[in-house]
Amino acid sequence: MPAYEQIAIENVRPSIDGGRHPVKMVVGDPCVVEATIFRHGHDRMQAVVRWRGPDDPQPREVPMALVEPGLDRWQAELPLKAVGRHRFTVAAWTDHYASWVVELTKRVQARQPDVASEIHEGLTMVERVSRTHSGPEHDEAQALLGEMVKTESQPERLLEVASSPRALELMARLGPRADEAVCPTELAIMADRPRARTGAWYELFVRSQTSDASLPGTFRDAERRLPELSRLGFDVVYLAPIHPIGTTNRKGPNNQVGAGPNDPGSPWAIGSPAGGHKAVEPALGTLDDFDHFVAAAHGLGMEIALDLAIQCSPDHPWVKEHPEWFYQRADGTIRYAENPPKKYEDIYPVNFDTPDWRGLWDALRDVVEFWVAHGVKIFRVDNPHTKPLGFWTWLIESVHQKSPDVLFLAEAFTRPPMMQALAKRGFTQSYTYFTWRNTKAELTEYLIELSDPASASYFRPNFFANTPDILPPILQRGGRPAFKMRLVLAATLSPTYGIYSGFELCENEPIPGREEYLHSEKYEVKPRQWDAPGNLNDYLVRINRARRDNPALQHLENLTFLEVDHDEVIAYAKATPDGRNAVIVVVNLDPFAAHASTIAVPPEAIGVQPGAPYEVEDILTGARYTWGDRNYVHLDPVGGEPAHVLRVIRRAGAETRV
Amino acid sequence: MPAYEQIAIENVRPSIDGGRHPVKMVVGDPCVVEATIFRHGHDRMQAVVRWRGPDDPQPREVPMALVEPGLDRWQAELPLKAVGRHRFTVAAWTDHYASWVVELTKRVQARQPDVASEIHEGLTMVERVSRTHSGPEHDEAQALLGEMVKTESQPERLLEVASSPRALELMARLGPRADEAVCPTELAIMADRPRARTGAWYELFVRSQTSDASLPGTFRDAERRLPELSRLGFDVVYLAPIHPIGTTNRKGPNNQVGAGPNDPGSPWAIGSPAGGHKAVEPALGTLDDFDHFVAAAHGLGMEIALDLAIQCSPDHPWVKEHPEWFYQRADGTIRYAENPPKKYEDIYPVNFDTPDWRGLWDALRDVVEFWVAHGVKIFRVDNPHTKPLGFWTWLIESVHQKSPDVLFLAEAFTRPPMMQALAKRGFTQSYTYFTWRNTKAELTEYLIELSDPASASYFRPNFFANTPDILPPILQRGGRPAFKMRLVLAATLSPTYGIYSGFELCENEPIPGREEYLHSEKYEVKPRQWDAPGNLNDYLVRINRARRDNPALQHLENLTFLEVDHDEVIAYAKATPDGRNAVIVVVNLDPFAAHASTIAVPPEAIGVQPGAPYEVEDILTGARYTWGDRNYVHLDPVGGEPAHVLRVIRRAGAETRV
Repeated sequence: MPAYEQIAIENVRPSIDGGRHPVKMVVGDPCVVEATIFRHGHDRMQAVVRWRGPDDPQPREVPMALVEPGLDRWQAELPLKAVGRHRFTVAAWTDHYASWVVELTKRVQARQPDVASEIHEGLTMVERVSRTHSGPEHDEAQALLGEMVKTESQPERLLEVASSPRALELMARLGPRADEAVCPTELAIMADRPRARTGAWYELFVRSQTSDASLPGTFRDAERRLPELSRLGFDVVYLAPIHPIGTTNRKGPNNQVGAGPNDPGSPWAIGSPAGGHKAVEPALGTLDDFDHFVAAAHGLGMEIALDLAIQCSPDHPWVKEHPEWFYQRADGTIRYAENPPKKYEDIYPVNFDTPDWRGLWDALRDVVEFWVAHGVKIFRVDNPHTKPLGFWTWLIESVHQKSPDVLFLAEAFTRPPMMQALAKRGFTQSYTYFTWRNTKAELTEYLIELSDPASASYFRPNFFANTPDILPPILQRGGRPAFKMRLVLAATLSPTYGIYSGFELCENEPIPGREEYLHSEKYEVKPRQWDAPGNLNDYLVRINRARRDNPALQHLENLTFLEVDHDEVIAYAKATPDGRNAVIVVVNLDPFAAHASTIAVPPEAIGVQPGAPYEVEDILTGARYTWGDRNYVHLDPVGGEPAHVLRVIRRAGAETRV
Repeated sequence: MPAYEQIAIENVRPSIDGGRHPVKMVVGDPCVVEATIFRHGHDRMQAVVRWRGPDDPQPREVPMALVEPGLDRWQAELPLKAVGRHRFTVAAWTDHYASWVVELTKRVQARQPDVASEIHEGLTMVERVSRTHSGPEHDEAQALLGEMVKTESQPERLLEVASSPRALELMARLGPRADEAVCPTELAIMADRPRARTGAWYELFVRSQTSDASLPGTFRDAERRLPELSRLGFDVVYLAPIHPIGTTNRKGPNNQVGAGPNDPGSPWAIGSPAGGHKAVEPALGTLDDFDHFVAAAHGLGMEIALDLAIQCSPDHPWVKEHPEWFYQRADGTIRYAENPPKKYEDIYPVNFDTPDWRGLWDALRDVVEFWVAHGVKIFRVDNPHTKPLGFWTWLIESVHQKSPDVLFLAEAFTRPPMMQALAKRGFTQSYTYFTWRNTKAELTEYLIELSDPASASYFRPNFFANTPDILPPILQRGGRPAFKMRLVLAATLSPTYGIYSGFELCENEPIPGREEYLHSEKYEVKPRQWDAPGNLNDYLVRINRARRDNPALQHLENLTFLEVDHDEVIAYAKATPDGRNAVIVVVNLDPFAAHASTIAVPPEAIGVQPGAPYEVEDILTGARYTWGDRNYVHLDPVGGEPAHVLRVIRRAGAETRV
């Protein structure tokens, strides 16, 4: 590095918070690195992206090109081939040879009589490169030098030789980099596997996979359900905790104090004499059964996600082995979780401020690595916002060192800065406010925020339409049409979405006045009749197929809201950058009444020619329509459908870039 | 600092490029520091801005307040009292005592029967503070502890004592900061004197302050002109270089090769046997004369700005003393400035890459400090973009260490990144593209960019309406109405503006087809008749008085463009944040024809009550009008005036914050 700033390298992209956190991408994504690079005076420069993939022992270089001279903007594309962290920076230096060519060209064009001294300068530069290199590089430089010496007395001819692309490339590559400047920040890109961005999730309790509440379901039972979940089009089966459940202060139905002898307890009260976070609840089967279940899912092209809830029942082995990992009162007893007046007597929170935090952290990493070894590559993390940020940074980086393909979903429902911070510190995906966004204005504002490239570069939403903890009022009131409407929104607004089982049966009985389920599955075994009348199974098949068949639905930043003249109707389009695939979604947000509206579709949003009509096909119903700039839509959620999911059809070759 | 991240401090403002460069403000400005601060869980926090003014040996602390709880946004205000660099960072820690008060309050409100153990925790915290402090702080804590012990068995009463503002303040101030987090970046604010932001500049050649071209003007002559410049309302008198002018290859009129014996040469060809950058041209007088001239300006409330042009005539003493500071050819001769086919044989550029760059830099700093010692606190720097960025960072910081009140104006006409970079690295003000922005669209776009707070926080425009190098086509074609129009734009759009002498006489004879003056003053002595018919002296007096009397015109970020239904008419408003002063400017951009238009004024832009009419006074003509939401304007630049500069008049107390 030179002793003082000669070349400025600024505004390097992609980056988050000046490079403090890695940008999230997916292997195979076009990864364009940009920087503003300039220096004083008029000299030419060369610039490279210096980068290292997760498996590269040494950094490599990709030359950058000056793509916007008026703004000194340079660009190069990195190949993202391996899953894992890619690190890069930008370096630039003065290309004295190219500067000399430009200068000499001006003199020759101005017919300056004596340019011998200038020509001498150029020869010296080539000679030096030849002298300081060996092998083929020396030979190349020597050859160039020879040609230049031959034409030394004929400036025009010398210039032809000296300014040939081959000569410029050679000297750019081999010339000295005495004043090389390097961007002071090393930036990082986390290249994830595609499932990090796109997927349909299904959440279930293993013990409810039974037809008889007195005979709780097992891994074997759950395994028998996998082919149906695969048929429905799900990619990820996410299990409520499968670990041994404590008996001390176990909660009964509806979270009541004092469980009956047959009450199974909350799976989030983890730990019993049968083991802790690295064991399975004996009632569900054995670890072998679990392995068999995981293998079956993989065989169907699905993955299993586990819940990572860092908390313990009073019966967890750690309570005896490491009482210092918990909050101890003055009298030596351990404090249970509490948010007065609410008490959670069946759960001990973990004290991350324990002097033995290193021991605790290692044990928690061991938990994750244990399940990774059992084929689990996705973890849904319970309440990460109640644990220190530094722990998550460390845990995720540690796990990724060995297994960069592990995905972490943050279940943090809290204020935006913490939710964003968790994503920046490594969580692959995040729960969102989606269940609380209902009106057109709310959905539009929230999705504009989430789909903004600055946000989407680190915060990947996972739109759960319901969870064991959240039965949104719209589902309680709106019934089946509302379930379909919210399903379409979740599955087409966000590349990753999920439902919690029972959704497909339109279960919606709440604790009165609350947004919680009555007889919550958290405390009871809940057998279900999956083919009950009114089920949404076929609807799920069609929606999940639409997601798989249309790459446009697998992205977030490509979302464009369309102008709609009815307040209860929302419409948006998504298209792939090459314009080959485009989908228009129109949803009636009112589950109680039919509404008609006009939808304006800017041709550029879906890559069609302006002014020309085009065909669309409703992927949910098969109906076809001819659309154009303005379109009439009538959606009757009660007697018909609450939504159109329209694939744009066009003749081959008619697509335009969007 | 804790071993891992527990508290996040993000998005600290004000800052530029993540704190890499100082933010520019003016002493007395309200300086609000903001940060997003959050941690896991529900504990309460305390936060401070830790800062140091230029004269503070030790950092001080200002407590921050949580102003936007939903976004975890904290705020504090720093006093900017001294001119110079203020450094600050943000620190935050968990307030365990306040967290304990919140928790205990919940328990007491929930009527939990046994809170003795919780009360004990609080007593322990206060006891610890009492034990670890001495003097009055110990006594305060001891007193609180005593009161708490007295009420120990009555939770409600104890809570009253423990949660009193005095108790909370005491414990926030004295409690432990074990997990204190500090924003990793130290940020800086350059608090300049007011002239850094606001001023009217007048550029002149000392040698032209004469009535006879054969008797060039001197400092004594120029001094006699100062009272008139003061009367016209100028704050800064900027002199073309005053140093000895070389004779070797001196240029004649219109930059022609070969000067006649009486041709004075370009003042930018600096250096002769009479001296270099620390000497004055003997024809202008002595250094004593210069000192007298500077003192006279100060006596009139004006300042002198010098030109800092880092280049030498072949006769500069440095050429002999330090030939290594220049570009030496192989034959030992020194290379003159050249941009083929253009040649500048009278000027040697300085080689900043010289191995003796430290010697060169020191010499250049000595030049600046020499003139600072002679009362010059403003330097207009010639072509800074052709010298290394690192040099400017160093030079300006070095000079500011002793003299933080020195201002530097960057004369860089180049691509935006370099212009912005020079401003970020310390230049107080910058030349701009103003002379090339003529249409309403051009002016609006450019001013929206410049007045954006992110830009205005480091880039302060100085709108010169003309310079010895730039005679814009609009002035060539548009004559006197164009001069008035461009003067109003420069003086009211930008808090700092300038004219180069001759502007007030509407001089506009170009080299045909170029935007340069014919018979440029750069190569000739140019006597002028200052009271010639058609002069703009009175107009200047009124405009400069308007700028002084209306604080709204002394700022940039307060600019709002108004809706105007004619393409040749531009209108904008500026108001002070308290709404007490507001000015509306309407300009007909067409110097050839009268145009009428309707101007829409949003009441909030000027701090008036919506719907109510108000009075405005044209500061240039004294005419009064009643204005409201929409107003008809007719401007005739030929027969009348090209612009309105309207001060909003209202009854005392009727202002609203804007």
